[in-house]
Amino acid sequence: MTGRKKVPRIVVQRLPLYLRVLSTLEEGSKVTSQELGEMLGISSAQIRKDLSYFGGFGKQGTGYQVGFLRGKLREILGLDREWEMVLVGVGDLGHAIARYGGFKKEGFHVVAAFDDDPAKIGRRVGGLEIMDVALLPEVVNRMGLRVGIIAVPASSAQEVAAAMVTSGIKAILNYAPVALNVPEGVQVYQIDPLVGLQSMTHYLEGF
Amino acid sequence: MTGRKKVPRIVVQRLPLYLRVLSTLEEGSKVTSQELGEMLGISSAQIRKDLSYFGGFGKQGTGYQVGFLRGKLREILGLDREWEMVLVGVGDLGHAIARYGGFKKEGFHVVAAFDDDPAKIGRRVGGLEIMDVALLPEVVNRMGLRVGIIAVPASSAQEVAAAMVTSGIKAILNYAPVALNVPEGVQVYQIDPLVGLQSMTHYLEGF
Repeated sequence: MTGRKKVPRIVVQRLPLYLRVLSTLEEGSKVTSQELGEMLGISSAQIRKDLSYFGGFGKQGTGYQVGFLRGKLREILGLDREWEMVLVGVGDLGHAIARYGGFKKEGFHVVAAFDDDPAKIGRRVGGLEIMDVALLPEVVNRMGLRVGIIAVPASSAQEVAAAMVTSGIKAILNYAPVALNVPEGVQVYQIDPLVGLQSMTHYLEGF
Repeated sequence: MTGRKKVPRIVVQRLPLYLRVLSTLEEGSKVTSQELGEMLGISSAQIRKDLSYFGGFGKQGTGYQVGFLRGKLREILGLDREWEMVLVGVGDLGHAIARYGGFKKEGFHVVAAFDDDPAKIGRRVGGLEIMDVALLPEVVNRMGLRVGIIAVPASSAQEVAAAMVTSGIKAILNYAPVALNVPEGVQVYQIDPLVGLQSMTHYLEGF
């Protein structure tokens, strides 16, 4: 894939949204950047520019073939395969994550779960036996895992992230409310409900 | 506040990130848009443009006063007060949300929790008694709540959103993996872990 490393991260983060809208359209139909833009609340120019990083995928004036564009986006995003993930932290949130149907449906599977609480180790969650977090490096390495989910308290998230990175994890979905320090080449996506709340309350002033 | 309604939503959603970075700096110090940009991975021009929607807050060449800018952003975002929230859905995820320390610390408090499961109604979560979701409109109305959190399965999220809107909720933090239809004037922020995963795997291809 040409130019893979040069595409701005913000552009890559929009592609899953494009994909989501395309999934609601007929495989064999066509869609213009204007129509996509309206469905997404993004300008059509932005959409054309984003897709141009990868070659464009449409002819001027005729729109995009839905099935073709979907296939290309899935390929670009690395979604033409299944992904196995490790989960660290099996409290309430970890339980919800392990059982979350939305991941599996899209080819993301939690295949190993860890905690440091002796009361949890050996118990089961979502069909998996919860393992001692001390075994994380060995298991990640043996299974060749590259994607990790952190669902531990903020106070231990950095430590878990460091252990994940050492073990070979390259992409971390972080639910802990703390910014992680990771080396270059490791991706972090922060789940941040506060940003959502704090931006919505702007519109509530005066109520 | 002038121009409140005309500021693009994407701009408003960046303000909490600015605020977060400012919180790590000395109250009495100064910071330039270049420095903020480096800390945030956003161009300094973008930061100046974002802040210009609200009046600017800095003189050319001298940077922003940290404490002043923080105060202004908190005011713009409606964070110079406490917010009470209603939570619907008290499964694993709802439990995690009700107990989440990150909200309280920033002035967001879950003050009522609902579920439709008779086995859960009457039990306690995070110091609250779980109520029958049938009582939602009455309680929201009586308490004057404006912010709601949805932590129910995708299949019932739209129904819950509709009940919230009817009850007077104006901002919804949605954890259910489904896009909600709400009338104009109601804000929705979607917690979407899949977008995170699907954008990170782009960088993993080849591993």
